[in-house]
Amino acid sequence: MDFNEILAEIASEAPQQIGRGKVATYIPALARIPANKFGIAVRTISGETFQAGDANEKFSIQSISKVFSLMLAMRIVDDNLWRRVRREPSGNAFNSLVQLEYEHGIPRNPFINAGALVIIDALISVLKEAKVCFLECARGLTGNSAIDFDTEVAQSEAEHGYINRAMANFLKGYDNIDNDVNEVLDAYFHHCALSMTCAELATAFLPLANDGVSPVLKDAILTPQQTRQMNSLLLTCGRYDAVGEFAYRVGLPSKSGVGGGIVAVVPGEMTVAVWSPELDEAGNSLAGTRALEMFTQITQRSIF
Amino acid sequence: MDFNEILAEIASEAPQQIGRGKVATYIPALARIPANKFGIAVRTISGETFQAGDANEKFSIQSISKVFSLMLAMRIVDDNLWRRVRREPSGNAFNSLVQLEYEHGIPRNPFINAGALVIIDALISVLKEAKVCFLECARGLTGNSAIDFDTEVAQSEAEHGYINRAMANFLKGYDNIDNDVNEVLDAYFHHCALSMTCAELATAFLPLANDGVSPVLKDAILTPQQTRQMNSLLLTCGRYDAVGEFAYRVGLPSKSGVGGGIVAVVPGEMTVAVWSPELDEAGNSLAGTRALEMFTQITQRSIF
Amino acid sequence: MDFNEILAEIASEAPQQIGRGKVATYIPALARIPANKFGIAVRTISGETFQAGDANEKFSIQSISKVFSLMLAMRIVDDNLWRRVRREPSGNAFNSLVQLEYEHGIPRNPFINAGALVIIDALISVLKEAKVCFLECARGLTGNSAIDFDTEVAQSEAEHGYINRAMANFLKGYDNIDNDVNEVLDAYFHHCALSMTCAELATAFLPLANDGVSPVLKDAILTPQQTRQMNSLLLTCGRYDAVGEFAYRVGLPSKSGVGGGIVAVVPGEMTVAVWSPELDEAGNSLAGTRALEMFTQITQRSIF
Amino acid sequence: MDFNEILAEIASEAPQQIGRGKVATYIPALARIPANKFGIAVRTISGETFQAGDANEKFSIQSISKVFSLMLAMRIVDDNLWRRVRREPSGNAFNSLVQLEYEHGIPRNPFINAGALVIIDALISVLKEAKVCFLECARGLTGNSAIDFDTEVAQSEAEHGYINRAMANFLKGYDNIDNDVNEVLDAYFHHCALSMTCAELATAFLPLANDGVSPVLKDAILTPQQTRQMNSLLLTCGRYDAVGEFAYRVGLPSKSGVGGGIVAVVPGEMTVAVWSPELDEAGNSLAGTRALEMFTQITQRSIF
Repeated sequence: MDFNEILAEIASEAPQQIGRGKVATYIPALARIPANKFGIAVRTISGETFQAGDANEKFSIQSISKVFSLMLAMRIVDDNLWRRVRREPSGNAFNSLVQLEYEHGIPRNPFINAGALVIIDALISVLKEAKVCFLECARGLTGNSAIDFDTEVAQSEAEHGYINRAMANFLKGYDNIDNDVNEVLDAYFHHCALSMTCAELATAFLPLANDGVSPVLKDAILTPQQTRQMNSLLLTCGRYDAVGEFAYRVGLPSKSGVGGGIVAVVPGEMTVAVWSPELDEAGNSLAGTRALEMFTQITQRSIF
Repeated sequence: MDFNEILAEIASEAPQQIGRGKVATYIPALARIPANKFGIAVRTISGETFQAGDANEKFSIQSISKVFSLMLAMRIVDDNLWRRVRREPSGNAFNSLVQLEYEHGIPRNPFINAGALVIIDALISVLKEAKVCFLECARGLTGNSAIDFDTEVAQSEAEHGYINRAMANFLKGYDNIDNDVNEVLDAYFHHCALSMTCAELATAFLPLANDGVSPVLKDAILTPQQTRQMNSLLLTCGRYDAVGEFAYRVGLPSKSGVGGGIVAVVPGEMTVAVWSPELDEAGNSLAGTRALEMFTQITQRSIF
Repeated sequence: MDFNEILAEIASEAPQQIGRGKVATYIPALARIPANKFGIAVRTISGETFQAGDANEKFSIQSISKVFSLMLAMRIVDDNLWRRVRREPSGNAFNSLVQLEYEHGIPRNPFINAGALVIIDALISVLKEAKVCFLECARGLTGNSAIDFDTEVAQSEAEHGYINRAMANFLKGYDNIDNDVNEVLDAYFHHCALSMTCAELATAFLPLANDGVSPVLKDAILTPQQTRQMNSLLLTCGRYDAVGEFAYRVGLPSKSGVGGGIVAVVPGEMTVAVWSPELDEAGNSLAGTRALEMFTQITQRSIF
Repeated sequence: MDFNEILAEIASEAPQQIGRGKVATYIPALARIPANKFGIAVRTISGETFQAGDANEKFSIQSISKVFSLMLAMRIVDDNLWRRVRREPSGNAFNSLVQLEYEHGIPRNPFINAGALVIIDALISVLKEAKVCFLECARGLTGNSAIDFDTEVAQSEAEHGYINRAMANFLKGYDNIDNDVNEVLDAYFHHCALSMTCAELATAFLPLANDGVSPVLKDAILTPQQTRQMNSLLLTCGRYDAVGEFAYRVGLPSKSGVGGGIVAVVPGEMTVAVWSPELDEAGNSLAGTRALEMFTQITQRSIF
């Protein structure tokens, strides 16, 4: 099975989806990304690298950053964290406040916006410089010290992110934010505004395919059990309100972002990162999802 | 029928409810008000005044201020206002965000928090100095230029009002706030923090019993039709999610506030203002509601 | 003020609304009613009668029947009834199950479907022959012993009324139906299928304008207090999720039905019944609502 | 690794959970099951069998039957089925009508009650004798022709299952049931009332661990792709509103029933069935869940 050939096939077919979705427009900095971009990168735990299309082009990782935030939290925040955020699929849009009100300010999981705000608040309580640590984490996992926030995107989020600002204040109103709301939001907007390529994301996620060990750092980021737990959260909560469909069609733990990126994990083997900015109605990359579906069909990979 | 006697009877019986409810505690400045206060004042359109108990003691009018805000808006904002806020009972708690999300940022009515924020935003767009005009309105309607904001309460709201802050940002996220969120909130918190007595509130509401004409100003504040419209809104939306019960038991248009005040209107005749800080579960004054129920039973007043 | 002239004017202008709404189609027997019907009838407590248009044509009173059911219940069921059904506007569609689930099977008020099913269940517990008593009540109030159920409509409802059947079973699941579900539904479908004219409805509602006394029966149906309570329920709950708008525009207690009828009460004076089958989105007669709005504007009647 | 030893350890420790939960009481036939029962059975695809405790005692499989219903449907109903039922976790209680109303009668997945009713309706449309085929399916998969419905339980469900009856009528009201509501409910109540042992359930689920091939029938029940799809649905939807927690703690596809049974799948290896009647708040067996957690911790099995 020639992965270069497979990725080439995917890169030629999956982008045919482009035109049926919509690029995220809620902040101007995202809205101006060309819709026809498509990249895919595979990294195996044994060190092989495959890629096609725009796999080396930077994009805004947005919600994919929530995985890095949770990785950090799993390392340094104790289990009381799970009293403040649950581990269940939300069954609702990623930025909905309805469920949060019904459930008294306890977010359903760390991968919806409200949950990520709580995770970041917990990080700030321990780290103080949460933004810096987060950036170092992303740089360390990729071995690329040039990785950085897109400050224009972060600024744009800060200016237009009224729903996220509402959510952070709402959480504070339920005593589920300990630090200053503006400080938490500033970190949140920066995390989301991290710029990375498919190739970098695939590398950064390798510990999740490798029992927690980063081939770059040659060190364990998470324990094997934490790695399985993280993958379970990705599977059940990593796609907003479309997790079941993705598990059915693709069958891999993954996390998507409204920048059009998706990273999937084949435990024990490899990671696959895709990018294409047009989104479906649930906010997941259209061509990216199709690419991952093709990948698992062709390679017969699935956790099921 | 001797109104002094009636009010005396009410002032002796209604306070027996005290002990069964709870003083609002969400901001410290309200939480420290003694629970055993009770005042009642009646003002007729022909100029008679009756009162009993703590009718001359200042208290925080809180949501009762929403009536003054709407009065101003009815005078100076055009009917497009009603595209931004509806005229239906919410059937939900006064500070719920659930309905606002389901209904895409259009508040159900001007007397829930979200609706009042929209009204104040509309006032700011026209008036610029909305806080000043609001204060002048309250002073004018009572003829008392000493009426003022309790800045400690306003400050306390600004510091602890995370849910209201969430709501304002949420409305802004739905493009239903035109001005700066902080400016709108500042005005909102000040409006709520107005300090008035039962006697002053009864006087200020007299136009609603008098086809829109203020006996103090000797001028029409609202047209007769606007007055009927305002009274209809008070009846259907003036008591958060307990309007039906109040209409059933008392049968008058009214507005309550979490400071424990309630003002009711007997169209064509008079106004009745009561104050007692302990609230029932829906956030309405317990002894105040009982006092108004007694008042309409004894005097056989009802709009029905 | 010449009421004949006023009604003639209304009957010529209000039907211009026809074409903008939709005749109820959920049961075939209603769907086939011509959309262009329009009738209006006024009855005063002093015995005057005025009418225009199709005021003597029978139509299916549908939810207006809920007022007769509640009248009966107020007479013969004790106050424990109000533990099983509340007195608040629902803020939701008339046949919604959402609120009923959140509120554990206690309907918001007697005028939404779930509430009416509970009322009818309570009637059956006392009366056994609830359908017969109901029919006698309607006949007595109009003095017309020919008033009857439209069995074709009742049959049609029984065959297609799956949502109502769901609701009755749901209430039973919450122990808020005591009798056999099918028996309750049979009575409910028959009540809704009562056929009456505008003229008859206006007459039948006269007690609500007359302190509870029926001019036909020359007897009190309700006490004055019960009459005020009923009118308050009509005002706050009589129009499904559009009560606030109707109070604002029309200002009278009223009850509408999806057959296109509306009956309104001017306390102390008269009743007004209108009929036009096309409905607005909330399920209220479009031309009928416009007719009542014109009526109160021209005659300057309002409870506010 | 000695599985007999492992199961013995689990059978001695997991039942310590008993006393903290509640046996299902909504039908009398379930309420009288002794709370202290505990059984566990493992079947491998290579034919090994291990078990401990009450693994040969019959119990009511309840919602586990939904897996058999869906297996049948995957075989004989075309893909239009997925227009009538989705593949997403519900995030709500298994018998909630709220989501079904918001989503216009399309159930979230085949493993909540509403979804199973739709599946059974689809089966009836193709099979006519759906109950018989279902029974034959269960008998075939276990090789035990004595497996049967507990008619007392089925009868009890039929008498007390008002919420399910509400749900079926509600679905019919949304045109998502084609056949007679009572026929669908009768099949549903029977499916739920199937009596099986842990040993039989583990055997019956073996195709899901074996690329769709039943070792008993020596035939493919599902294709390998369908098997992966079924397992994905079990993982994301098989535990009502507690799927995320189970994935996090146990990491295997599984289905639970309010009878206290749970069956889990280790793809490519084996199945594990447990039974203990006391349930947690989400309706899943308390000791059963603990047993599966221990099993995956000790054996280091996980799909993640």
